[in-house]
Amino acid sequence: MRPDLVVDVPLDLPADSRPLPVRICEGMRELIMDGVLAPGDHLPSTRALSAQLAVSRGTVVASYEQLEAEGYLVASSGSGTQVNLDLRGLHRRSATPTPPPPPRHHHGIDLTPGAPDTSGLANSAWRSAWRRACVQPRRITDPLGSPRLRHEIAEHLRQMRSLLADPRHVVVTGGARAGLAELIQVLCDGSGCLTVGVESPGYPSLRKVPTALGHRIIGLPTDDQGLDPDGLPTGGDARNVDAVLVTPSHQYPWGGSLSASRRAAVIEWAESAGCWIIEDDFDSELRHVGAPLPALASLDAQHTIVLGTFSSVLTPALGCGYLVVPPELVGPFARQRQATGQPVAAIVQEAVADYLSTGALRRRTQRMRQVYRRRRDTVIDILGSVPGATLQPIDGGLHAVLRVDGCEEEVVEGCRREGVGVTPLSTYWGSTDADAAGIVLGFGSHDDDTLAAALTTIARVVADRTGS
Amino acid sequence: MRPDLVVDVPLDLPADSRPLPVRICEGMRELIMDGVLAPGDHLPSTRALSAQLAVSRGTVVASYEQLEAEGYLVASSGSGTQVNLDLRGLHRRSATPTPPPPPRHHHGIDLTPGAPDTSGLANSAWRSAWRRACVQPRRITDPLGSPRLRHEIAEHLRQMRSLLADPRHVVVTGGARAGLAELIQVLCDGSGCLTVGVESPGYPSLRKVPTALGHRIIGLPTDDQGLDPDGLPTGGDARNVDAVLVTPSHQYPWGGSLSASRRAAVIEWAESAGCWIIEDDFDSELRHVGAPLPALASLDAQHTIVLGTFSSVLTPALGCGYLVVPPELVGPFARQRQATGQPVAAIVQEAVADYLSTGALRRRTQRMRQVYRRRRDTVIDILGSVPGATLQPIDGGLHAVLRVDGCEEEVVEGCRREGVGVTPLSTYWGSTDADAAGIVLGFGSHDDDTLAAALTTIARVVADRTGS
Repeated sequence: MRPDLVVDVPLDLPADSRPLPVRICEGMRELIMDGVLAPGDHLPSTRALSAQLAVSRGTVVASYEQLEAEGYLVASSGSGTQVNLDLRGLHRRSATPTPPPPPRHHHGIDLTPGAPDTSGLANSAWRSAWRRACVQPRRITDPLGSPRLRHEIAEHLRQMRSLLADPRHVVVTGGARAGLAELIQVLCDGSGCLTVGVESPGYPSLRKVPTALGHRIIGLPTDDQGLDPDGLPTGGDARNVDAVLVTPSHQYPWGGSLSASRRAAVIEWAESAGCWIIEDDFDSELRHVGAPLPALASLDAQHTIVLGTFSSVLTPALGCGYLVVPPELVGPFARQRQATGQPVAAIVQEAVADYLSTGALRRRTQRMRQVYRRRRDTVIDILGSVPGATLQPIDGGLHAVLRVDGCEEEVVEGCRREGVGVTPLSTYWGSTDADAAGIVLGFGSHDDDTLAAALTTIARVVADRTGS
Repeated sequence: MRPDLVVDVPLDLPADSRPLPVRICEGMRELIMDGVLAPGDHLPSTRALSAQLAVSRGTVVASYEQLEAEGYLVASSGSGTQVNLDLRGLHRRSATPTPPPPPRHHHGIDLTPGAPDTSGLANSAWRSAWRRACVQPRRITDPLGSPRLRHEIAEHLRQMRSLLADPRHVVVTGGARAGLAELIQVLCDGSGCLTVGVESPGYPSLRKVPTALGHRIIGLPTDDQGLDPDGLPTGGDARNVDAVLVTPSHQYPWGGSLSASRRAAVIEWAESAGCWIIEDDFDSELRHVGAPLPALASLDAQHTIVLGTFSSVLTPALGCGYLVVPPELVGPFARQRQATGQPVAAIVQEAVADYLSTGALRRRTQRMRQVYRRRRDTVIDILGSVPGATLQPIDGGLHAVLRVDGCEEEVVEGCRREGVGVTPLSTYWGSTDADAAGIVLGFGSHDDDTLAAALTTIARVVADRTGS
């Protein structure tokens, strides 16, 4: 008998004049045929069920014996009474269907952007952080997140981004998209529809968030140096914009970074427009060329909100990121969180804080920078001079954009036939003015040899096409 | 030298005619005095910094030597060049402040409701689930959550709640509040303000969610059998209600559960009003008396949405719950998730799925039911017949409500002086008609002896007060 694995039997006996065992048997047959009780389920002991139904134990014993005789139940010494396994497939309704098989493995090399290399992540610092966190998670009472984690994030930003953030202004979020969604709720404060300016073309994933929440987006022009301050709305149009979402360190998909003078111009514009700047800092730790650029938030802490995530430097499976908000948003954020709760599990917050506190993230980031720089150089070596194509600069991050003459679908399809998955640039284009054909490829997640093989295939597909 | 722990040095050299080492030294002093570089930070090697600045290595060597002479930097064999530790406290702005000390331990017994007993949770099944999940998390491509976890949740609902749910209708959420917040976004679909009916009095935490998101709540009358169907809005008022939030298995704070006839009446009302029922199932696995009651969702799968969480049966530190939604909401939910992303980290989903698949949650729930029933009996033994007070029924869950004659603040304060923390009932009261004074106490989290001691104190405080 394994009383620790029995199912609940939700018997609701009809109040009629038939004998109790008849009514119990009828109810049990219904539960079995409806799939509420499934073949193999262990039933409660006769003692437990008689207590539940407030009938004598003998009544339940008689009912079980009747149902065993009918083949619904099976009694076996050592494991109590079970629903007969032979009844599988006889249900009127099926019980929980079996889970779908995992998606079939794509044969080939998938270069969909967004995936970092997670090999070597699960070292002893990582495993011991999770072990400690899952065994004894601390209760987090601060609505903005674990004070320890917020301190570690501020320290991380100082060391990796040269950004001085007060830990009290750091908010732990469920990653970039979740953080943006929460931020928009706070900025909106329950009153109507916000207007959010987004780079056009720009990163496709974040721009969907405002519209999914019922707000409005407007496109802001970009070029290969990022957001173009000269194209920002002016006058009354500017004052109607509530926030702009900017990627200063690594514009998507152009690849360039915002110059110091453009940074100053954007900040000046936001001040005069009374508008928030949301600084998407998603992979700024992974910069490949030149000196690190100052974050917008370090130039202007009154209007700029940093939107960060650990997805690129650790793994998207962590679902953890952060915001650094100006002081005046701390209170409204805390109030909203008091209603909606912590978005990141205490176990996760504890594990990340523990991992960061050992310096393991700094070590990993600095190691991965070397790895990614090497892979970026491989991309430039192989794709930098393919006839009929132009490789955009790769100042940072984990993806490259190869603009091609002619039809991008032809290239995507050609690569697919050769077993390499790349993404058409048009899906990354926010504007309707999609005059640039091309492909986007992530170079982060595969080892060097696999990457080189995939890139060589792409170069051949592109060159063959233009050569013919 | 530990090149894996160096900081970034965001030097931006002024383009003037002074010698390079002068400009480098000036920039470094600024970074140190501003706190961007902190005492103890390891600087990049002269080779690395000269490459970053595109200057000769000798220039950087000269600059480092100058700054060492000035006391800003310290060179030590074996650990490269560091910012001088003696500079602590000399910053104009401080670097990351030290984290706040953890909150002081409350001396006494805190009976704030909502905390389950987590002792014994971290057994081998739990630890190995986290170990596996953190080392190799699978990528989750389905916006509604891990198919494996959704299957396990459906199986859990069948076994523990006798609710047959199709795994494709199960949505993994960040817990009850986060799930409700997402659900409201989906129901609203970006169009204006919803009206959500909430039990009054009712559970205080969930009712804050609609208003925090800019929606409207209206109170629905309850009594000791839960929601009163006779008090539901009629006619045009009913059609203006978009959703009602109902706790059929365990009304908060009354403690009762909704009778079969009331369940039918609520469903009939929702059908005629064209209104969603949100079934708050937060601790329905922990039922103390009688046969399990059928979930509203098992009586009506077209209008009823199940809102569930693992907080009560496992730990709130997990931040994981679920919704079971009618088929017509599956598509809208998936579309919203495509914009806002997964709210629960893949590592957490993987760990919970693994833990559930071993049967460990069923074993734990059945064991904890025994523990909580015993503690509930202790509450009834000690507080069931205190003069001047009435203990509400405790059909399920982890808290009790003791209504008291006279002033509840006096009781709360009296208990506090004796080292027992209880919550005034008025904070749990959603309506302004707060005619019932009383206290709410959680009996889940403390061991039997501690609980009995706290309850005896409460009984004495209440009796002394009314006796005097």
